[in-house]
Amino acid sequence: MNWRKYRKFPAFVFKERTWPDRTIEKAPIWCSVDLRDGNQALPDPMNVEKKLKMFNLLKKIGFKEIEVAFPSASNTEFRFVRKLIEEGYLDDDTVIQVLTQSREHLIRKTFESLKGAKQAIVHLYNSTSEQQRRIVFKKDKPDIIKIAVDGTKLVKQLSQECDTDIRFEYSPESFTGTEMDFALEICERVLEVWQPTPEKKAIINLPATVELTTPNVYADQIEWFCNKISCRDSVIISVHTHNDRGTGVAATELALLAGADRVEGTLFGNGERTGNLDIITVALNMFSQGIDPGLDISDINSIIKVYEECTNLKVHERHPYAGKLVFTAFSGSHQDAINKGFRYLREEKPEYWDVPYLPIDPTDIGRQYEAIIRINSQSGKGGVAFIMEHEFGYILPKEMHPEFGEMIKQKSDEAGRELSPDEVMEVFSENYLNVTGPYKLIGYHVETRDGTVIVNARIYKDNEFLEISGKGNGPISAFFDALKNISGDLPFRFEAYSEHALSSGADAEAVAYIQLANGGGKSIFGVGKDRNTTTASFEAIICALNRAAAENKHV
Amino acid sequence: MNWRKYRKFPAFVFKERTWPDRTIEKAPIWCSVDLRDGNQALPDPMNVEKKLKMFNLLKKIGFKEIEVAFPSASNTEFRFVRKLIEEGYLDDDTVIQVLTQSREHLIRKTFESLKGAKQAIVHLYNSTSEQQRRIVFKKDKPDIIKIAVDGTKLVKQLSQECDTDIRFEYSPESFTGTEMDFALEICERVLEVWQPTPEKKAIINLPATVELTTPNVYADQIEWFCNKISCRDSVIISVHTHNDRGTGVAATELALLAGADRVEGTLFGNGERTGNLDIITVALNMFSQGIDPGLDISDINSIIKVYEECTNLKVHERHPYAGKLVFTAFSGSHQDAINKGFRYLREEKPEYWDVPYLPIDPTDIGRQYEAIIRINSQSGKGGVAFIMEHEFGYILPKEMHPEFGEMIKQKSDEAGRELSPDEVMEVFSENYLNVTGPYKLIGYHVETRDGTVIVNARIYKDNEFLEISGKGNGPISAFFDALKNISGDLPFRFEAYSEHALSSGADAEAVAYIQLANGGGKSIFGVGKDRNTTTASFEAIICALNRAAAENKHV
Repeated sequence: MNWRKYRKFPAFVFKERTWPDRTIEKAPIWCSVDLRDGNQALPDPMNVEKKLKMFNLLKKIGFKEIEVAFPSASNTEFRFVRKLIEEGYLDDDTVIQVLTQSREHLIRKTFESLKGAKQAIVHLYNSTSEQQRRIVFKKDKPDIIKIAVDGTKLVKQLSQECDTDIRFEYSPESFTGTEMDFALEICERVLEVWQPTPEKKAIINLPATVELTTPNVYADQIEWFCNKISCRDSVIISVHTHNDRGTGVAATELALLAGADRVEGTLFGNGERTGNLDIITVALNMFSQGIDPGLDISDINSIIKVYEECTNLKVHERHPYAGKLVFTAFSGSHQDAINKGFRYLREEKPEYWDVPYLPIDPTDIGRQYEAIIRINSQSGKGGVAFIMEHEFGYILPKEMHPEFGEMIKQKSDEAGRELSPDEVMEVFSENYLNVTGPYKLIGYHVETRDGTVIVNARIYKDNEFLEISGKGNGPISAFFDALKNISGDLPFRFEAYSEHALSSGADAEAVAYIQLANGGGKSIFGVGKDRNTTTASFEAIICALNRAAAENKHV
Repeated sequence: MNWRKYRKFPAFVFKERTWPDRTIEKAPIWCSVDLRDGNQALPDPMNVEKKLKMFNLLKKIGFKEIEVAFPSASNTEFRFVRKLIEEGYLDDDTVIQVLTQSREHLIRKTFESLKGAKQAIVHLYNSTSEQQRRIVFKKDKPDIIKIAVDGTKLVKQLSQECDTDIRFEYSPESFTGTEMDFALEICERVLEVWQPTPEKKAIINLPATVELTTPNVYADQIEWFCNKISCRDSVIISVHTHNDRGTGVAATELALLAGADRVEGTLFGNGERTGNLDIITVALNMFSQGIDPGLDISDINSIIKVYEECTNLKVHERHPYAGKLVFTAFSGSHQDAINKGFRYLREEKPEYWDVPYLPIDPTDIGRQYEAIIRINSQSGKGGVAFIMEHEFGYILPKEMHPEFGEMIKQKSDEAGRELSPDEVMEVFSENYLNVTGPYKLIGYHVETRDGTVIVNARIYKDNEFLEISGKGNGPISAFFDALKNISGDLPFRFEAYSEHALSSGADAEAVAYIQLANGGGKSIFGVGKDRNTTTASFEAIICALNRAAAENKHV
């Protein structure tokens, strides 16, 4: 590959940086540009109806600033602003923002679109980078400054002439490709015209129009700019990153460390080329650190639904927080750890969320953790046990996990794909619940005499009807004793037993798990299910014996 | 939303950092984990055949280290390693890597899988984070160290007993959630056992198993670790990031600044949950800065094709470098700037790539820039002109761009969607090439007398046959003069003319563009096309007159 055709991003030296020592403490002012920067990049731009649907979604999420259009760019854009104003879609809580290049006829058209609005942000831009000046505009720095200053003067004049409360935003477009001192100079000159105050601040938006280098450099630029700008207390520093190098989220986060007050972006990062900043991700990153994101993302599935309808784009399976696969765990060790994490939450009730491999609780954004574990050939036993417990209510004893896990692994290996929970249950039923074999329980009678339990049971063994009898400390040991009493052909010792109700209520079915071990110490498990807890445990023993018999036949 | 349920990532103070002052200078050692970390996270894991296809792709791209399996995890995994070794898929150029937890039976199984291999990296891991120790393993630090040390001893012993040249990698899994001094300690203890040398280095891999905070903290951790590790010259520091916060690429890049030597990741970032690091993006980010990425990504479309076949996942439309939409530009100003960028390249032939909004030349990775501009209602005239030139060969004069651009904008606005290049051409044909009206050229004769050109032409005007005659400096002015001579009803002045061949060759068709202006200064354009350049220009004038007539009728 011909890498010699490219060159390094020019060095920007700023050793005074302090941002790497900081952490994000609060949410910025969010501004959605879904309806403009996002919309302009869609193969099928939204029509007015879809724009309205998206606008309502953005309001519902809680955006207070929404860039709704580039009114002078097309009829659709202009009409949309008019519709919002004329048909009463605006309230005092939400400020609409409109974008315009710094050119007279476009600025005038923009103000025309705003007629009747109570308040609005007019977002003026012109491109300032060395590359754009040289190749696109063929203008020197003073001419570029003049474009910005003239535009600002006109915006100021038209603001004074109209009834709308106009807030002002200026973007030196392609900021990151601009020499920092020039970027500062043009912003200072614009602010000299606008004359913001601490009470009525101007927004200076510093876009990474194309992502040009590693995100730490953007943070350096932002901190340098924040330090240098002369009327810092009258200015809101806004950032607007793109994702050409896949680091748009990082650039915004580091810029917040560096002092930015405001963030422009879109839902799921829609936007030109590789997209704008994904606000949902940055907001949920904050949420995961105990910071109020200032947005309501508690039902991310609905947000995804409307987003996909409006944009005709899909959210990728691995998209942070939103993708279909992001709350799944496939690997055995991960599944086991998550399982233990959930148990830890239940048992210890810690103050903070604390589950390995799950940075946030999926239910906090309307996702389900019941389904987070899928079973494939690489899943461990812990994952399988989780499915059995959370999907079907069977709390398999820990000792049983390896045996059942191995069955599932083999089944999935054979199938060459993931198994659904139902298929996991099917393997369980086949191997534990619907086992037939030499032993069959017909009926039994239990009585207690002087603290000793006596069981008389009727069973089939190899099609032979037998009445057997045994005693013990409880029904299980007595039944096991009875089985041992028939011609000593029971080369097992009793290892463990557990039982639980499958659901709540006195007449709920119970499940019993029995672990036997043969002479060599090899374990064999049996499961029994019945409304009667005693019957369930007897069936479990019968099941274990039948499974052992089947295994011996195989050998 | 209940953000109070979460807490901040614990502070890691490291003021001695130097990484923010550095830039990336060269590609790291790349290690693909597509066949393991990537594969384990697929709803349908690859079968042996697909794994082989992916393995061949990875070799073709140029990976020298490929983690091929977790051989003790499943039969498929084990068999795949055997197949690679037994069926001769390995060469001296590529080292396979196999992953194992630090447990005796798994390590032994792993070595079993390697029998007969000439060389391999055995990648041993155990989890070290505070959370995993407390919730999952319920073990103290000394026990966790013992797991790692015992595993390393066994790997060392089995390495000495086998014929394979074994390189060693150790990962303190969940490194970023581990107290740094403990992470350092466990690695030191492992290295004490392994005894690497500068000639035969060990790999210490420091995973962000789950992305827990902003990427600058990871860089701090890596630089701190690189500074502290006692045998730095005998150790390759490897990074392995995940993308839970959408900053996996940034974390890797900042870690490279911080001193990492090696990067583990996957194609397009496949992997558990939100995925692993996307190596393609990091490599092309380097490429875009004039650094040899050490991988061959010159045909990204083929890579995508095999990737999608093997994983059953799609590369998202906005995925950096790879997405379908990333080399498109929809906005007018972007299209105009790109257009000027391409012209700048053609005319100035600069040493370095220099096109606004395109960080790299799409053709360098096998993508096409012919199709980068799509036309919708928000496209500017520049984009439309680009399509006409690059798709159809019509170089419209700059003065004509607004008129034609407006037609396209209106058409797209009406359609409510993007127009294809063919639809753009259709609008052009309808409005300029297939224009009928009062004027029609039947034939003409041109002769030159004493430097004056005389044109005699036969035309229809309003169904009336006319023979007209005029003179001028050239045929165009003479024909225009002739038209003026008919009853003075031609209220236009001649403004501009341009003409070019539509393709190469002497008999190629020529296209002529004529700009007329009426009394009020309003321009009207006409286009003519013919093999004869003179005929083309006459037709262009006729076209302009017919268009003017049609426009007057509308008014």
